[in-house]
Amino acid sequence: MKYTFNNILGNFILDEKFKIVDTKDKKKLEEVPKGKISLVLANFKDKKYYSEFYEKNLKLTKKGIKASISEDLLINQAIANIYELDKINNILIKRLREWVGLYLPEFEHSMSNQEKFVELIIENDKQELLKLIKLKESDCMGADLDESHLKEIRLLAKEIKELQALRKKHENYLEKVMVKYCPNLLELAGITIGAKLIELGRTLKHLAMLPASTVQLLGAEKALFRHLKTGSRSPKHGIIINHPLVQKAGRKDKGKAARMLADKLSLCARLDFFKGEFKAKEYRKILEEKLNIKV
Amino acid sequence: MKYTFNNILGNFILDEKFKIVDTKDKKKLEEVPKGKISLVLANFKDKKYYSEFYEKNLKLTKKGIKASISEDLLINQAIANIYELDKINNILIKRLREWVGLYLPEFEHSMSNQEKFVELIIENDKQELLKLIKLKESDCMGADLDESHLKEIRLLAKEIKELQALRKKHENYLEKVMVKYCPNLLELAGITIGAKLIELGRTLKHLAMLPASTVQLLGAEKALFRHLKTGSRSPKHGIIINHPLVQKAGRKDKGKAARMLADKLSLCARLDFFKGEFKAKEYRKILEEKLNIKV
Repeated sequence: MKYTFNNILGNFILDEKFKIVDTKDKKKLEEVPKGKISLVLANFKDKKYYSEFYEKNLKLTKKGIKASISEDLLINQAIANIYELDKINNILIKRLREWVGLYLPEFEHSMSNQEKFVELIIENDKQELLKLIKLKESDCMGADLDESHLKEIRLLAKEIKELQALRKKHENYLEKVMVKYCPNLLELAGITIGAKLIELGRTLKHLAMLPASTVQLLGAEKALFRHLKTGSRSPKHGIIINHPLVQKAGRKDKGKAARMLADKLSLCARLDFFKGEFKAKEYRKILEEKLNIKV
Repeated sequence: MKYTFNNILGNFILDEKFKIVDTKDKKKLEEVPKGKISLVLANFKDKKYYSEFYEKNLKLTKKGIKASISEDLLINQAIANIYELDKINNILIKRLREWVGLYLPEFEHSMSNQEKFVELIIENDKQELLKLIKLKESDCMGADLDESHLKEIRLLAKEIKELQALRKKHENYLEKVMVKYCPNLLELAGITIGAKLIELGRTLKHLAMLPASTVQLLGAEKALFRHLKTGSRSPKHGIIINHPLVQKAGRKDKGKAARMLADKLSLCARLDFFKGEFKAKEYRKILEEKLNIKV
């Protein structure tokens, strides 16, 4: 009677005393009975297997780690960087505004659109900017700075524009990854909200497993725990507050819109994870009709 | 008897009853006696002066604001932005390292020099990076990412390099401004510490008025107030801890080095504010000898 035994080192043939004979045998082999496993394992206490075990194990672990890098991790990195770029953009624009305020306070004050502000600073000199806000130079309260100072300010403005361009590129990249990986979520949630939902849920798999009510509150953990701890009002929406369907809903309907949207987003995540059909457009239409909002 | 009276509207001639006659008179005119000022001012309650007053006042205020923009404010903006760029650089490099770690964890781990890390990521593909750390691709634990993912990571690395270049340009700019405005402080403190001292002191004038013991602690306000409030150990140095003379001093000598350096920095600020001689090189030599440190 001979037995067969498999482990990461390969396939072994054992004799009736459960010693390794390590030959191929064409006869039908039986599996080792459960009670005798310890006898089999005793074979592998032999030192000659130690380094072999170590190496095979390492290889398998490395392979496991390699395989664990999924779209989820890539999406998480990109969306996290988009959020960081947004914060950085705010910091640097604040600095730019202060700096410009030294020589053109009236222009700084009158231009509230951030992107346009940066653009105009890069492309115009002081005279042209004064013309834009219809102000005579003699009326301007700003200092007369010479070109060496203005150059430095323009360098900062250019850098801000570059960072905004990088953010845009990250978005395009995310869209390309998501259109394959989670087309439904992408279609209904949009790029940044969709990616942020995956980041908040850690993986698409985990997001798909969450109840819709949790999806509704992802990103509002702070308010939720405050609610649980102090009894303050419970949050009605997390990150999905930024979705146009919630944004455009009337003040009283925001909670309802968030709940219905989270419901469908949850379905989207499940469809995407289980490689289901593309239904997001349908869902959007249903939501638009029920909420009477056109986005 | 006629009197003369000046205000921002111009020069007025008054008759003996203190009414404006507003003509030029070549006779010697007397100043209005103090007790009669209210009679003179009554003239200006006439509405015809109102808008004139308003406009002249506005013009003077604007002029005042314009004149208040000094090198101090420009230095403050530039050094504040350098500090922000440093923070941003740290945030983005951390992100880059995490992102690279997905496909080249071994490289990410082995390269501790930040600037070199960014440089190598920009200029090399995965194969070349693996060669640099002498690793076979099959041994690498990172995922096999295709070019579209790597491109995105490289874009971030390029942006980080741009930000580092902007920081360098800001430094050059500061040096140009400071070499004229505060050559002594620049020479002894260096660019970033010198500029930061002006920022912490708000202006060169104010910095020059501060006692050396305050200069020594500029930038350590938090530790100082903690000391005053809780009796914890008093701080021995603020921002000047980063100066090579303090850095290179032995652990026991740091306090002494900081005190002596602050002493001379304070003198430098005074020399610069009062347009005195250039003595910073001399001071540096004295400090080097006394502390037995060569920088």
